[in-house]
Amino acid sequence: MPTVEQRTDLPQPAREEIRIEQVLAALGDPVRLLFVRQLAKAPAVGVACGVIPLPVTKSTRTHHLRILRAAGVISMRAEGTRRVACLRREDLDALYPGLLDGILGAQH
Amino acid sequence: MPTVEQRTDLPQPAREEIRIEQVLAALGDPVRLLFVRQLAKAPAVGVACGVIPLPVTKSTRTHHLRILRAAGVISMRAEGTRRVACLRREDLDALYPGLLDGILGAQH
Repeated sequence: MPTVEQRTDLPQPAREEIRIEQVLAALGDPVRLLFVRQLAKAPAVGVACGVIPLPVTKSTRTHHLRILRAAGVISMRAEGTRRVACLRREDLDALYPGLLDGILGAQH
Repeated sequence: MPTVEQRTDLPQPAREEIRIEQVLAALGDPVRLLFVRQLAKAPAVGVACGVIPLPVTKSTRTHHLRILRAAGVISMRAEGTRRVACLRREDLDALYPGLLDGILGAQH
């Protein structure tokens, strides 16, 4: 019998629970913004978090990703021992049209 | 001889010195976002800072306005004893098209 890998979505706010102050505060950090910029280039199905290099320790990385997830900027799911992250582009574009493009297109 | 009121612009980053992380961090606070939302409704020539009600003490207000100014979100000038604030809409729209509209249009 083939092994079925368990997939579990980590807790996150529903679209209507997302708040602009929290989204902006989550994105207003160089490390988190770097992660989101890289994630935006990844396939929409998501990417293993560890694949995106960040100039911080593992525990700091975990902390930053939790802030992004709690704010509703990214979703994460556990696939076995991996954590796969997705940018919640559809939710953010629906709530704040133009916001994400304005940020991702920034030259500096 | 008529009195000429002295107008002095307070220090602020030039457009090319504005950084997206600092703009987002400045806006990612409920009090500062409230101020910016109110300022966005004011005439483009600016409004006396004290006219916009904020649920904080005067020293906290000064702190928040300094963060917004240092990030390049607002400009301020001294006119006699008044401080007049303007939203730097033109600069922000040029640097990050869509960002400000996405934020100001947010329902929550």
